[in-house]
Amino acid sequence: MTKGRLEAFTDGVLAIIITIMVLELKVPHGGYFEDLKPLIPVFSSYILSFIYLAIYWNNHHHMMQTVKQVNGSMLWANMHLLFWLSIIPFVTGWMGENHFTIASVFLYGIILLLSSIAYWILQTIIIKSHGKESILVKALGKDLKGKISPILYVFGSLSAFFNIWISGGIYILVAIIWLIPDRRIENALKGN
Amino acid sequence: MTKGRLEAFTDGVLAIIITIMVLELKVPHGGYFEDLKPLIPVFSSYILSFIYLAIYWNNHHHMMQTVKQVNGSMLWANMHLLFWLSIIPFVTGWMGENHFTIASVFLYGIILLLSSIAYWILQTIIIKSHGKESILVKALGKDLKGKISPILYVFGSLSAFFNIWISGGIYILVAIIWLIPDRRIENALKGN
Amino acid sequence: MTKGRLEAFTDGVLAIIITIMVLELKVPHGGYFEDLKPLIPVFSSYILSFIYLAIYWNNHHHMMQTVKQVNGSMLWANMHLLFWLSIIPFVTGWMGENHFTIASVFLYGIILLLSSIAYWILQTIIIKSHGKESILVKALGKDLKGKISPILYVFGSLSAFFNIWISGGIYILVAIIWLIPDRRIENALKGN
Amino acid sequence: MTKGRLEAFTDGVLAIIITIMVLELKVPHGGYFEDLKPLIPVFSSYILSFIYLAIYWNNHHHMMQTVKQVNGSMLWANMHLLFWLSIIPFVTGWMGENHFTIASVFLYGIILLLSSIAYWILQTIIIKSHGKESILVKALGKDLKGKISPILYVFGSLSAFFNIWISGGIYILVAIIWLIPDRRIENALKGN
Repeated sequence: MTKGRLEAFTDGVLAIIITIMVLELKVPHGGYFEDLKPLIPVFSSYILSFIYLAIYWNNHHHMMQTVKQVNGSMLWANMHLLFWLSIIPFVTGWMGENHFTIASVFLYGIILLLSSIAYWILQTIIIKSHGKESILVKALGKDLKGKISPILYVFGSLSAFFNIWISGGIYILVAIIWLIPDRRIENALKGN
Repeated sequence: MTKGRLEAFTDGVLAIIITIMVLELKVPHGGYFEDLKPLIPVFSSYILSFIYLAIYWNNHHHMMQTVKQVNGSMLWANMHLLFWLSIIPFVTGWMGENHFTIASVFLYGIILLLSSIAYWILQTIIIKSHGKESILVKALGKDLKGKISPILYVFGSLSAFFNIWISGGIYILVAIIWLIPDRRIENALKGN
Repeated sequence: MTKGRLEAFTDGVLAIIITIMVLELKVPHGGYFEDLKPLIPVFSSYILSFIYLAIYWNNHHHMMQTVKQVNGSMLWANMHLLFWLSIIPFVTGWMGENHFTIASVFLYGIILLLSSIAYWILQTIIIKSHGKESILVKALGKDLKGKISPILYVFGSLSAFFNIWISGGIYILVAIIWLIPDRRIENALKGN
Repeated sequence: MTKGRLEAFTDGVLAIIITIMVLELKVPHGGYFEDLKPLIPVFSSYILSFIYLAIYWNNHHHMMQTVKQVNGSMLWANMHLLFWLSIIPFVTGWMGENHFTIASVFLYGIILLLSSIAYWILQTIIIKSHGKESILVKALGKDLKGKISPILYVFGSLSAFFNIWISGGIYILVAIIWLIPDRRIENALKGN
């Protein structure tokens, strides 16, 4: 029951975050194809952020399947994660509207970094409460993806001061790493 | 469980998409009936898009009833569908605010086309995972509606370059085709 | 299952409608109490619409408890209801921002009227599918509230052309009629 | 069932309230770090309100776990609570955008006060319907937090006329009081 409501609330918040980002795609006043041109950077950053939020929903969804009981720390760690994810529409809009300035590309990476740390905290609390023999621990294994992502975000953010295209490339790379099918939790659940 | 959360997230996103479209109906500064006139095109396109999203929700809802197990590919195919549907408020607003320019009517059809392709991909993945003897396969039969819609969207989009009223007529036609009661899945579920 | 998803989608849409109305309460640029004065009409109409939407949620919630099976007609009648309810934030904002002009007060009543008709259609479809001996029929009894409300909305709307305060009074009156505790469905469910 | 839908609706509304607050963080037109400076007060008040809404969700969630049957009064008391919480994005934005003027800091406290009173009303109705031997009564014990918060909000609001920093300090203090882990309901549920 408790778990159901935590998932429902998280789903609600993620659904809203992912959707209000579209509001940054402001309807242009002109009705010609040329009028869409200035929206290309906003649209590109929308796609990237949509994928990131979809990955978070996906991973959250799989992780929660392994959870048996929810406690207060999990509720708060989850809220903390939602807080950073809720900032994503803002940084997405800022990056897109100002055509990828150094500051905005840097900040985008920082928010991704803070989100990934928040996710890691939530994961750690779940593992702690379910024990080292839990499905989640088995599923994560060495958790290479989880460990490498924050490092890549740091590199990505800092690269913005040299060349924003390197940052962009790194952010896209991390998204691809997570998009590659990963059946760890599915397999661990079956094997149990 | 998994299926429940996929449905809940989809419902959340669709509910938000369908509702934020209303935000494009910007409250006019004057308080007379005349002040509503410029909103007529925005309102018309709102009605059309509302019906389209309602049809998607309805079909998605019926299709998911036939699903027994959810896998990673389905989650991503679903996300892909939600992505294109999330662009509908933008194209709706663009079309309405610029009084149905060629470019906006064309793009509206393209987004409908991409949404229908995304739906078809999701449907194909579900069929693939449940087998050719599944309820969904029986229910779809020849899936005439599903096959004819994308073709009509292509025609509708291209017609915009000749006459936007033809496009509009085709978009309305497709909506009517889907609104006609269609008990395929309901019957297939009962017969099983 | 089906019923659950219909409720979830309706809850989502209603939750969003009720909440995006707050966005019409635009943050004033000044920081003094006087700067809030122009918001009083917007705030008043927000309160009224909030109560109306809460009544709809409440009644919908009770009505759905009596539903055993959901069919296609119900899904569409429900969508039709959500459509008119989704216009409420717009008319609320229009009425509030233009300080209750005749046109806006009239239109507000019309939308309430159309919503109540849509609700009545949904109710009729549910009754038709569950039979005259159903819990809902017993619960509604003569359905005095349901019958008198549309008539009052018509009077309220037309009164705007004479005196908007009469309209306002009638709209508030209908809300009060529905707020008066009404245990019809609760009792019918218990007695069954 | 009834309880599930009440929770779902509340979750939906809270999820939207918490997320639309981000829309007040308006994307600045410049792309430099300096352009973010004016957003610091808006961001600070966003953090505070996010925490408050998270606390409300958390407490609501725990309280509802003790509820066995839902009645009409609870539904309306819950709506009343949601009404005041729905005003929080407005006062948050007003306070942030006008850099914590006396009026805005005062009003923020008043809305927090009214929300806490609404929560107390809901709690009282739940207790009344479940009896003095209910889990909730045992869990609340003397309900020190619940009793002290409204008093602190009154002090916090009034302090704004002397020094807004005292108000801010008090609002943060109340948030901290509620953030301190509090296992009352969890323990009462286990002990039952």
